[in-house]
Amino acid sequence: MAKVVLDVTMSLDGFIAGPNDDVERLHDWLFSGTTAGNSNRSASVLPGRESFKTSGGSTEVLEESFKSNGAVVMGRRTFDIGERPWGNNPPFQVPVFVLSHRGREKVVKSATTFTFVTDGIESALKQARAAAGQKNVALMGANTAQQSLKAGLLDEIQIHLVPVLIGDGIPLFEHISRKHIELERTRVIEARGVTHVRFRVVK
Amino acid sequence: MAKVVLDVTMSLDGFIAGPNDDVERLHDWLFSGTTAGNSNRSASVLPGRESFKTSGGSTEVLEESFKSNGAVVMGRRTFDIGERPWGNNPPFQVPVFVLSHRGREKVVKSATTFTFVTDGIESALKQARAAAGQKNVALMGANTAQQSLKAGLLDEIQIHLVPVLIGDGIPLFEHISRKHIELERTRVIEARGVTHVRFRVVK
Repeated sequence: MAKVVLDVTMSLDGFIAGPNDDVERLHDWLFSGTTAGNSNRSASVLPGRESFKTSGGSTEVLEESFKSNGAVVMGRRTFDIGERPWGNNPPFQVPVFVLSHRGREKVVKSATTFTFVTDGIESALKQARAAAGQKNVALMGANTAQQSLKAGLLDEIQIHLVPVLIGDGIPLFEHISRKHIELERTRVIEARGVTHVRFRVVK
Repeated sequence: MAKVVLDVTMSLDGFIAGPNDDVERLHDWLFSGTTAGNSNRSASVLPGRESFKTSGGSTEVLEESFKSNGAVVMGRRTFDIGERPWGNNPPFQVPVFVLSHRGREKVVKSATTFTFVTDGIESALKQARAAAGQKNVALMGANTAQQSLKAGLLDEIQIHLVPVLIGDGIPLFEHISRKHIELERTRVIEARGVTHVRFRVVK
């Protein structure tokens, strides 16, 4: 059955983006093994498939995640930021469900469809599971991840741990329950600079 | 020359202790590979040397850190919490420098001395370096770590990453500079449950 997975790049101090949603510095690490380089990619929320080919040691891990995803759930904020840079051929190429208070007609862009879900995380995940079939449902965005965790609906977390302290930005784990959530570490991969650590959420 | 090192147990959501300075749940992981077990150790801030012998896969990593330390710098809060549980034979057995606004006479307990430093982190680290000789200076407590990082005086970070989300408590990385601090990952050890990841602070 489809698993709900969170696959995300995080600084050692727990941020998945800097202030102003800047993820360039973190993604630079995934792609060049250093945050010092300049990025000239246009997609700032999620690097497109093309970018993956230029990656260093993390390529295989990212490709593996991408290939295993049959649907995506993201927040409206992520969609709004990404819509323009993703262009007419967004990198997902699977059904995407966008959590939103505001309804909107389904958006079809090449192989990617965006369906707007106004009745909450459980509904979005249910629709995404149905669309994903045997594949996984991937979450995007801190808020979506937190909601899924709180609802007990997240199955797996893979952190691409980037060796930098950014000091400010969007924290991945905030507003989650004060009840401890136990994890089981299921895999560690040392790529160039980046450490990919995978966990199963114990239920 | 002595390195200034931070060696700390952290939950995946970035806490080094729960609310009320509770570190039992995190340390249980280091010693039994599960947070579910009960702890009957008396030292709640830093487990004593005795405890290390009962550890699972993380024993060697913790022993290595302990052996390489020639001095310790901690905050007054850590000292105040630890003083009683550490008893008359504290686990450090090296000179300890306690950052404090309030002065106090040097405390000698068996092989451990506690010197109270009222003129700031730089002074404390200088005295600790001198006392440590060729060995390392170990930092204890989030506040001491943050001050050292901000002052550019931290050389190495080793995180014992515990697979649990605790949702509330004392965050390790807070109040640090908004300037990015680059790290270089120098080692990863997969112990039972716990992932030990070591970084060099790039200066």
